[in-house]
Amino acid sequence: MTRAAVLGAGAWGTTFAAVLADAGSDVTLWGRDPRAVAQVRDERRNDRALAGLELPAGIHATTDPAEALADADIVAVAVPAQSVRAIVAGMGSLVPSGAVVTSLMKGIELGTHQRMSQVLGEVWGVEDQRLTVVSGPNLAKEIASKQPTATVIAGVNPAATELVAASTASSYFRPYTNSDLVGVELSGAYKNVIAVSVGIADGMGFGHNTTATVITRGLAEITRLGLALGASPETFSGLAGMGDLIATCASPLSRNHTLGSAIGRGAALQDAIESTGGTAEGVKTSQSIQELAREQGVDVPICDAVVAMIHDGAPKEAVLNALVSRPRKAEGQ
Amino acid sequence: MTRAAVLGAGAWGTTFAAVLADAGSDVTLWGRDPRAVAQVRDERRNDRALAGLELPAGIHATTDPAEALADADIVAVAVPAQSVRAIVAGMGSLVPSGAVVTSLMKGIELGTHQRMSQVLGEVWGVEDQRLTVVSGPNLAKEIASKQPTATVIAGVNPAATELVAASTASSYFRPYTNSDLVGVELSGAYKNVIAVSVGIADGMGFGHNTTATVITRGLAEITRLGLALGASPETFSGLAGMGDLIATCASPLSRNHTLGSAIGRGAALQDAIESTGGTAEGVKTSQSIQELAREQGVDVPICDAVVAMIHDGAPKEAVLNALVSRPRKAEGQ
Repeated sequence: MTRAAVLGAGAWGTTFAAVLADAGSDVTLWGRDPRAVAQVRDERRNDRALAGLELPAGIHATTDPAEALADADIVAVAVPAQSVRAIVAGMGSLVPSGAVVTSLMKGIELGTHQRMSQVLGEVWGVEDQRLTVVSGPNLAKEIASKQPTATVIAGVNPAATELVAASTASSYFRPYTNSDLVGVELSGAYKNVIAVSVGIADGMGFGHNTTATVITRGLAEITRLGLALGASPETFSGLAGMGDLIATCASPLSRNHTLGSAIGRGAALQDAIESTGGTAEGVKTSQSIQELAREQGVDVPICDAVVAMIHDGAPKEAVLNALVSRPRKAEGQ
Repeated sequence: MTRAAVLGAGAWGTTFAAVLADAGSDVTLWGRDPRAVAQVRDERRNDRALAGLELPAGIHATTDPAEALADADIVAVAVPAQSVRAIVAGMGSLVPSGAVVTSLMKGIELGTHQRMSQVLGEVWGVEDQRLTVVSGPNLAKEIASKQPTATVIAGVNPAATELVAASTASSYFRPYTNSDLVGVELSGAYKNVIAVSVGIADGMGFGHNTTATVITRGLAEITRLGLALGASPETFSGLAGMGDLIATCASPLSRNHTLGSAIGRGAALQDAIESTGGTAEGVKTSQSIQELAREQGVDVPICDAVVAMIHDGAPKEAVLNALVSRPRKAEGQ
């Protein structure tokens, strides 16, 4: 039986622990909040993260990293992207030397411009062969309700991705493996930025024609930057690219969409952040991606627009109209 | 000043006439229903098709094809896809010999498997150089409300597509030209079939993870068939491919989505058709596309599922679960 540790007892970490348990893996969930951990352990619920949902039997829970990580074959990490380095820094010596490390996070680190698996690899000294990522159209609350969901397990080592796939597959959770770590992680991080822009358009009262245009151009923009970084083009038209982007942009449950929508209706950034009830990863990732794109010399007008609107206070109407109403010309030019 | 005729006074035909008028073109709308035509002409409204919206000044309207088509530089056609051959058959001699013909329709003709521009070309004896198509994320009611919208004007002759683009461009309507008539028309027709399948999933209570997966695999399926038919891959990731698909699948206004949703909730096909209040083009186009795909030897599981569920009465749960939960393997295989 595979033994898995999940670090982070938010909605996605708790849901992924449930996925592992339902797939027959032996799983321990680590969290910082003693009340949330006690509730998972004693009541099979996590009201703060997944209100109203019953968790499967067999999820251990602890606030002790050593207990969670002991003998783990898989170490999955789901904490806020910009805090992961600080949160997991002290745990490196506890991670078993052969364990496969799985990032469940979607973001690009400010300053370093590293993808989440790169941060984990660096801070824990884990080689690329042991790094994997889970991404796709994976709204946590739908998976926790056992809605049928396809997902992508990415990594350069087929044995590692197959281990994670075999340890999570169940009647409602369908993993597909993919060797393009760069494309899968960039897509997962970048879609949060596009979701903020779609939320802004929604909040301003624009309709489906506009949001579909922004989503379409958003995927083109993600693809451009991804190809410059060496990703495979197929990733962007797949579940971790287009699939995740569509699910996130469609869902009123997405924090990034909710945040953008509040800004579109006129809220200040701080008020909008508070309205999301958690970390909207797109806020900071928009700045990382803008910097990354400039390094690569890639044009990213939607990311630029999000940074301008939420960080620089640029007028929303002007920025968004410029996005939709580019000069008339042949498509793709 | 460009003179344009629009044949068909439904929601899209009437909206396209308004787009032409707002762009400064001289436009005449032809319709079969004398009351709708009189209302457009005398009251600048079309309550049957676009309830509550005021049309711009300058749209002429008539029930006489000869009056509509006289001296037209552009002849745009927006009638139900499966009836277009019968409706326009008698008008061929009235179409000016130099006019650019523009299909606004989205469907594949039953029996012949022809795209709409092919039907118009054949029935009127119009050469390919004069055939164009308008497609994209273009929900009619949003355009009629002057929501900013991008669109694609496709055709093999740049002079023809440029004429249509220049005659429709305005502050809220942004045309992009594209030379891939096959890809643009196939996408426009096929997305209605995918929208039916997404509606079925919605109606059955599936969430955003599932619908995003179906939409993503739907675009992959459209692309596969399109490439077999000689289309350009870029079309499918553009506004007429992905953009139109997302807008249609997201909108509760879409008849194909509405029809699928009714079927998903358990309605019989005839009742579901009545609930849409018009022609859901995906119903018949699903059969045309299935036949076309078989001719080409292309695998189209979502189209097959739609045909099985709405025409053959196959059990929805089994068909949809099979779509989402394909055997676990590497993505893209």
